Amino acid sequence: MISTLTVELGERSYPILVGSDLLRDTTRLSSFVSGRQVCIVTNETVAALYLETLRNTFAGFAVDACVLPDGEQYKTLATYGTLIDHLMANRHARTTTLVALGGGVIGDITGFAAATYQRGVAFIQVPTTLLALVDSSVGGKTAVNHPSGKNMIGAFYQPRAVIADLETLRTLPQREYLAGIAEVVKYGVIRDAEFFAWLEHNVAALLARDRDALNHAVITSCRIKAAVVGADEREDGVRAILNFGHTFGHAIETLTRYEYLHGESISIGMVMAADTSKRCGMLGAGTAHRIKALLAAFGLPVVPPGNLTAAALRGAMGVDKKVVDGRIRLVLTHGLGDAVVTDRFDPAALEATLTAGGRLCED
Amino acid sequence: MISTLTVELGERSYPILVGSDLLRDTTRLSSFVSGRQVCIVTNETVAALYLETLRNTFAGFAVDACVLPDGEQYKTLATYGTLIDHLMANRHARTTTLVALGGGVIGDITGFAAATYQRGVAFIQVPTTLLALVDSSVGGKTAVNHPSGKNMIGAFYQPRAVIADLETLRTLPQREYLAGIAEVVKYGVIRDAEFFAWLEHNVAALLARDRDALNHAVITSCRIKAAVVGADEREDGVRAILNFGHTFGHAIETLTRYEYLHGESISIGMVMAADTSKRCGMLGAGTAHRIKALLAAFGLPVVPPGNLTAAALRGAMGVDKKVVDGRIRLVLTHGLGDAVVTDRFDPAALEATLTAGGRLCED
Repeated sequence: MISTLTVELGERSYPILVGSDLLRDTTRLSSFVSGRQVCIVTNETVAALYLETLRNTFAGFAVDACVLPDGEQYKTLATYGTLIDHLMANRHARTTTLVALGGGVIGDITGFAAATYQRGVAFIQVPTTLLALVDSSVGGKTAVNHPSGKNMIGAFYQPRAVIADLETLRTLPQREYLAGIAEVVKYGVIRDAEFFAWLEHNVAALLARDRDALNHAVITSCRIKAAVVGADEREDGVRAILNFGHTFGHAIETLTRYEYLHGESISIGMVMAADTSKRCGMLGAGTAHRIKALLAAFGLPVVPPGNLTAAALRGAMGVDKKVVDGRIRLVLTHGLGDAVVTDRFDPAALEATLTAGGRLCED
Repeated sequence: MISTLTVELGERSYPILVGSDLLRDTTRLSSFVSGRQVCIVTNETVAALYLETLRNTFAGFAVDACVLPDGEQYKTLATYGTLIDHLMANRHARTTTLVALGGGVIGDITGFAAATYQRGVAFIQVPTTLLALVDSSVGGKTAVNHPSGKNMIGAFYQPRAVIADLETLRTLPQREYLAGIAEVVKYGVIRDAEFFAWLEHNVAALLARDRDALNHAVITSCRIKAAVVGADEREDGVRAILNFGHTFGHAIETLTRYEYLHGESISIGMVMAADTSKRCGMLGAGTAHRIKALLAAFGLPVVPPGNLTAAALRGAMGVDKKVVDGRIRLVLTHGLGDAVVTDRFDPAALEATLTAGGRLCED
């Protein structure tokens, strides 16, 4: 069974296909390629698992592959340059189609290359991690990191389609799978209390990657993301709620030099955001605790590493792009399903969160 | 007197202001800045002439400057990286405004940085060369070069405004001024026979940079460019006629490693395009000769350097982005003011042009 959702963006609208064995579906995948050339961009780990399959699917085209090293530390302008060199060396024209086969790093780099190679070529997202599938592959945010901050170089650029083959999640290491669950939990927190409750009741099924539970979690997450992106493509307003936990999380990623996976940092960041919401009097202590407890039930980290000082966190958050003219904006929440973007909160609440250590959302 | 033209692009529309002493016009320039931060991007040569003036104009803002080396050879991903580093080091937020003060290289790099820094910030074009003023600053094409081809990395990204202060042209070296005249001639060739004839009668006045003649030439050029860009922002169709002479010209630039200025290469490229048009039977020999003669009257080069073989030109044109799925498209012209983009022409005519050497448009 294949489910199709649509990201509604006028002439830039595109479908998200969720199902099994989509990677082998030549007819369906080919329908999103308009030229003769295809470049599959992937990393060493994913290439070993799925590159030949996808290459065969696109056998009717002039297809080549660019295999990049695996890891967030390679999400750089230098790796982007390597990909551009590959496209030039293989004489890809403006009519080419890039296919991002991999997780968020591959999707973000490939999307940025698609946005900027010859001022823009077509691309298709084929996410192979849960995180990419429910988050980064949908919505057109593309980027690479700068040494001083995550995603500081990038563009808004929509894919032609997102192909979410749930079979690829079978091979995902448990740690990476759980990192994706952190973003799934986020959708419940920011937009859908009922989904949050469903997650609380399906922890065991999701830990076991039960097919039906996973299907429901992915489709619900993508539907929420598509709705938010459709309402605000370029993050002038509501879209910023998708960054719940991210200002804190990005700071942790930068300071720990990507020792945590993105989803793990965001898990900690969400608990910090819930903690600040609670300390501001926006969020009840019981709900804050439920957020922390659900993430912990999935085995995700829920407190920052002990060696990160409040000063370090403050510094790292200061260069984050959520700073508007010197005033920090945060995504906080009034309750499950009710997140807001605001720069009007008690700075003392934020400060208390930064110094709380392991006592987040606890008292 | 200040003339205002508008590039009509819906919500991305913006004005082109043409006049004198605009660089000192704090009220007018400030109206295009919405945040508190301004970063002036310029090169060493232009900085010495106008940076302090412009810095004073923006004195009411938090203003800093990034001074890049001068020259087309620096229009690279590496220089772009230097600019991004500057923006990060000076903590520019998403609400910042970049001001490109300089020629086409500065405008293109700054525009690309604006398109991609934090996924897009505001920018203003302040062109200080005739070439940038009538061409690259208008229309939202931003880019850097790749070692294998010009403008291969970039984005379509519109400025908030183009501020064309004609006084800055007073300090322009004659060679650079004439390189800009090449693009002015182009507008006559592709879209406006009457303007072409006016240019033929005003060679002496333009060589002397007569104020009224220059004003007319700049406004007419910008009006034509704005109309073409307004009709086809992303070069899906008619906009490509602005590339008249550019497929040939880019090949010459690449092969001579930027020994010619862009406008000089385009001058040669236009004569080659006219020559191919003539050999295809599209263009009368008399008109082809008038195009070559007008460019020569301005002292511009009109034949490729003798050491460039047809094979080398063919190779360099092959990687150009005007290649669509292996078939080369050229901008040719049916007469003055009547250019077309086509991949239907006699390949023998192109071949004859590539081997014609100094006999272009002559027999």
